[in-house]
Amino acid sequence: MQQGFDVLEKFKYFNEYLKNKDYLRLSDEIRRTNPVDIKDYMQTLDLSQAVIVFRLLTKDDAAEVFAELDREDQQRLLEGFSDIEVSTVVNELYFDDMIDMLEEMPATLVKRILKNSDADERRRINMFLKFPEDSAGSIMTTEYIELKPDMTVKEALKIIKETGMDKVTVYTCYVTNETKVLLGYVSLRVMVTSDVDIKIKDLMYEDVIMVNTHDDQEDVAAIFRKYGFTALPVVDNELRLTGIITVDDIMEVMEMEATEDFHKMAALNPEEDSYMDTSVLHLAKNRIPWLLFLMISAAFSSTIIQSHQMVIQSVIALNMFIPMITDSGGNAGSQASTLVIRGMATGDIKLTDWIKVLLKELKVSLLVGSVMCFVAFLKCILFDNVEILVAITVAFTIFFTIMLSKMIGSMLPILAKKLKFDPAIMASPLITTMVDSAALIVYFKVATLILGI
Amino acid sequence: MQQGFDVLEKFKYFNEYLKNKDYLRLSDEIRRTNPVDIKDYMQTLDLSQAVIVFRLLTKDDAAEVFAELDREDQQRLLEGFSDIEVSTVVNELYFDDMIDMLEEMPATLVKRILKNSDADERRRINMFLKFPEDSAGSIMTTEYIELKPDMTVKEALKIIKETGMDKVTVYTCYVTNETKVLLGYVSLRVMVTSDVDIKIKDLMYEDVIMVNTHDDQEDVAAIFRKYGFTALPVVDNELRLTGIITVDDIMEVMEMEATEDFHKMAALNPEEDSYMDTSVLHLAKNRIPWLLFLMISAAFSSTIIQSHQMVIQSVIALNMFIPMITDSGGNAGSQASTLVIRGMATGDIKLTDWIKVLLKELKVSLLVGSVMCFVAFLKCILFDNVEILVAITVAFTIFFTIMLSKMIGSMLPILAKKLKFDPAIMASPLITTMVDSAALIVYFKVATLILGI
Repeated sequence: MQQGFDVLEKFKYFNEYLKNKDYLRLSDEIRRTNPVDIKDYMQTLDLSQAVIVFRLLTKDDAAEVFAELDREDQQRLLEGFSDIEVSTVVNELYFDDMIDMLEEMPATLVKRILKNSDADERRRINMFLKFPEDSAGSIMTTEYIELKPDMTVKEALKIIKETGMDKVTVYTCYVTNETKVLLGYVSLRVMVTSDVDIKIKDLMYEDVIMVNTHDDQEDVAAIFRKYGFTALPVVDNELRLTGIITVDDIMEVMEMEATEDFHKMAALNPEEDSYMDTSVLHLAKNRIPWLLFLMISAAFSSTIIQSHQMVIQSVIALNMFIPMITDSGGNAGSQASTLVIRGMATGDIKLTDWIKVLLKELKVSLLVGSVMCFVAFLKCILFDNVEILVAITVAFTIFFTIMLSKMIGSMLPILAKKLKFDPAIMASPLITTMVDSAALIVYFKVATLILGI
Repeated sequence: MQQGFDVLEKFKYFNEYLKNKDYLRLSDEIRRTNPVDIKDYMQTLDLSQAVIVFRLLTKDDAAEVFAELDREDQQRLLEGFSDIEVSTVVNELYFDDMIDMLEEMPATLVKRILKNSDADERRRINMFLKFPEDSAGSIMTTEYIELKPDMTVKEALKIIKETGMDKVTVYTCYVTNETKVLLGYVSLRVMVTSDVDIKIKDLMYEDVIMVNTHDDQEDVAAIFRKYGFTALPVVDNELRLTGIITVDDIMEVMEMEATEDFHKMAALNPEEDSYMDTSVLHLAKNRIPWLLFLMISAAFSSTIIQSHQMVIQSVIALNMFIPMITDSGGNAGSQASTLVIRGMATGDIKLTDWIKVLLKELKVSLLVGSVMCFVAFLKCILFDNVEILVAITVAFTIFFTIMLSKMIGSMLPILAKKLKFDPAIMASPLITTMVDSAALIVYFKVATLILGI
């Protein structure tokens, strides 16, 4: 029995057994532990200890633990292994885990692994390595159960009994014809609740929802979310079954895609590696381009301020409200852009909804703008002791700025998507820079009108 | 066979059958369609048509389609139903779907549903309605397969055969003792690949990872992600099995939690409903509080500018660089805060890592600050034609501002978490407001030193 906090306690016992070379007991304990936790434990050990623990695992567990390890740890382990050990571990891996690993290993190690595979396996590996990054083909695996329509449930269950332990899932089985074209699927649940003499073709569900090897993994994730599947078949252009994608791999994709959006929306180049594992140089390189671009873009604001020095000089009080106005515009704009970007990412807002979004934001900004305008006026009068005309100028500017920001913030992401750019780049930082200039122009325009400068 | 684009085509046929009252054919076609697509189709129909389509469904499909519908559509349908129809649909629903629905239905409808349930069911419903929102208890369901340790695989498979179609999952079965305390689990995969005479207790996995009914759903999602499970048992304080949570429900939780973080990070009150379905008034109410708070906070910046009017008056060129400096600070700060907030959300960064993060950000900001400082200097000299001393002032200010922003941006989310606040509120808008003031203080300090004002 185990809940979160017990795991560290467990590791202490493991350490003791390891120290006392009580390998029998360690092996016994470790075999009753989830592979993810074994991986966590191995990461606390040095290489020689890790190799010892690894050798105590069953073949299946060894493969699972290995697949969970970071690339660097996998590499270290492989380098410490004999050729026979390399081929044992690699052959036990699920195909998608092996491909993931090979894609990021140094060439020498890939060669050594390929050397230890047979010709057929090598051909299959090379085919997989060719799928574009982030495509369904690059995340699928080939260990699925394939049935034929004329089999009976009894025959199917026999196949599952014999080969089931090597498949990523046995819960959805795929039915294909003699040329591997996908005909349908049948769930193990339906098979175990049916008569054993029924034919598979009478149980199978023919309206299969499937994806193509070249479909984007983000679209695949959307299908999983929409239908709540635990596995999805992947076919080639001739509708032949080439692999399946399982929900655990898709959860990783979903998390990664959300992280990428968070990063893009904060003016960062999206980063797949974890923050803690990324080097300082790499982090800096990811941050500089956007910061530079945005700093240079702020030149527009500078130019606007410079060309209105006269206005500022004549009513010096105007200057102190510039941050309040530009910040409010930026915040109002990024509220709208975030809602729209996230709405498009989750499928709630479609391109064709743009006019509805525009009208909605218009109404929302009338409400929000009015409240902000009123409070800004009170603040100017009561706390900043400025002339009433200056207060009116600031209040009006806030109102128009909120309106403008909401329009810009909500429409630019939709426009970006329409032009096939990623809407997430139209987030707070870029919107803020644009809204700054717009707000300043409004400010000086309103000031010259109201104050008659 | 079906891929995304075919669904709309299918709906056209459905409409034709519906128009021609060819219900036999419509029923036949609709039964071969995924419930999620049927729901999409029903949402294109008016109430009377929707009721017709609904009555053509099998009992199981009817329950699934009903569970997929929006609350308002569910309500409309229920109001159009006879008492018998209400009780049929409601009884076929999975327990978690029924609870989800009851939590948001008007009281009169809840009463009508409870009236049509038996005493035992009513008691169970009332217990579920008491779990705190967002707790594991509130999202779990009770339709799982429960086995006893002394059963054989053959007996277990018989139970699955008889009751399996009414359970949310048959792929993981839970083993309990006579007082319902959870002893372990056994997967259907292991059962169908084992000898039928083996006892369950010899196959079951005893180190079960489980959650408590009161655990937060976000923590539950983290466990699913970490271990790649498709189902997780939920126990009460006496470790008695009370329900299970399945991966499809958790995918929804994951998406909702990410959306909530996006919203919080853009100074919005988090919103569970979709943007398109939320009223203008509600949207405005969600945006105003933070905008007001941030606008008032900008008073600090105003005060700083006002108290340095003399500096600006003596070197008027300084004024035009204020937006560039505050924007750069805000952007640099939100890069750091986003990385840290997301890193903490995905479990990559822990509270105890704060010193590592601080050192890393210090190094990153030295690099980023130097590049930005150099470019800012060139820009001032080459494009803005300012005196060299003003250019040096701006460049140094940019450097220090980047350093400061990265420190503030990376440390505040960690501090917030330490103080048990949600780190996501320490995002761009709040960081920007704070960094603005800090940047302005640095600017005027550097200016007085270098320009000797």
